[in-house]
Amino acid sequence: MPTERTTLRRIPERGRHDRATIDEILDEAYLCHLGLVDPDGRPFVIPTIHARAGDVVYVHGSPASRALRAGTKGVDCCVAVTILDGLVLARSAFHHSMNYRSAILYGAAERVDDLDEKRAALDAIVEHVVRGRTDDGHTRPPNDKELRGTLVLRLPIDEASAKVRTGGPLEDEDDLTLTGIWAGVVPLTLTPGAPQPDAGIDLPWPGYDLNRVTRGGG
Amino acid sequence: MPTERTTLRRIPERGRHDRATIDEILDEAYLCHLGLVDPDGRPFVIPTIHARAGDVVYVHGSPASRALRAGTKGVDCCVAVTILDGLVLARSAFHHSMNYRSAILYGAAERVDDLDEKRAALDAIVEHVVRGRTDDGHTRPPNDKELRGTLVLRLPIDEASAKVRTGGPLEDEDDLTLTGIWAGVVPLTLTPGAPQPDAGIDLPWPGYDLNRVTRGGG
Repeated sequence: MPTERTTLRRIPERGRHDRATIDEILDEAYLCHLGLVDPDGRPFVIPTIHARAGDVVYVHGSPASRALRAGTKGVDCCVAVTILDGLVLARSAFHHSMNYRSAILYGAAERVDDLDEKRAALDAIVEHVVRGRTDDGHTRPPNDKELRGTLVLRLPIDEASAKVRTGGPLEDEDDLTLTGIWAGVVPLTLTPGAPQPDAGIDLPWPGYDLNRVTRGGG
Repeated sequence: MPTERTTLRRIPERGRHDRATIDEILDEAYLCHLGLVDPDGRPFVIPTIHARAGDVVYVHGSPASRALRAGTKGVDCCVAVTILDGLVLARSAFHHSMNYRSAILYGAAERVDDLDEKRAALDAIVEHVVRGRTDDGHTRPPNDKELRGTLVLRLPIDEASAKVRTGGPLEDEDDLTLTGIWAGVVPLTLTPGAPQPDAGIDLPWPGYDLNRVTRGGG
């Protein structure tokens, strides 16, 4: 259900609350931006990685560990995920825009302390980016020391919304008669290059199904 | 000068405070995430567009207008910009990472009310994405009504930091002898597709110097 925070006031027709749309955006995006409030009441934002597991999003919290260290109680946060799909060039400067898909989650994120859940969460984060990477023999799995040294947050997908913009420029009627001005869309896709093996690796690329590649730029 | 907020505690060797690095990241990224605190003291983050003009960043604040409407006084905010350059696959699950460049700005953002500054700021935002687009005859410039209807924030580049990760996986010594595990980097680049003209447009693509294209993925 939309709450006060997830109800879009601006261009509400772009807002979506269906879980399928929200999940798809969360699953495709390689990274998220985690918004927090510091002890002085000021906002701060860090880029980090996440993964969805059913109705929960796990966030790698180590980059914000300073702020998150205190207490096991939930910390108010906002997780924003944005996929850029194109540049929209309108006849008017004012109606220039971008095609994008974004999802915003709000809630109290809790620190994951149980080692089994933490292991599953970190596996999900690796799988989120490179499917098949946690299969037997594809990596050396985390040991308990590594698990303990990693801060993972759990945020239920509860208060969430998505925004999606697709298609060409939306122009003022009067501007449609302007001549000599190019208008349209430049699509953008995050494209993988040839895998670059590390020093000492003499193995073929294992052909992992990279998240973004299989899904395309929408 | 680094402040308490811009001093990196985690993997400090990735931190950069030089303006050249910060400016380059701000200039290349197509979008930013704006972090704010709502009236109830909770964090929220919105994706939006920005442009740097000298020592100032202008942010298109309309998507957050609800929160920013009140008052002309500065509002505490955080602007985060992240460019993803690659996936880093390590022999250990724990050392999986991403190559990225991020810049974080903190400060009190002020609403731009002067129409001339607003016009210049919006031009900068359009130019930031598509260079040459605000040249004469390339768009219909904003009129006063459009300028008044757009919320623009000004944030000085004052309290800022950058983080840059490049290169291959950093492994534990013991893991380097593992065999049969592929490790390395999958580079990622945001790639433009063929421009798609709007209905009624019978002009060649003007050959704009798209920001990202000329700079490459780093």
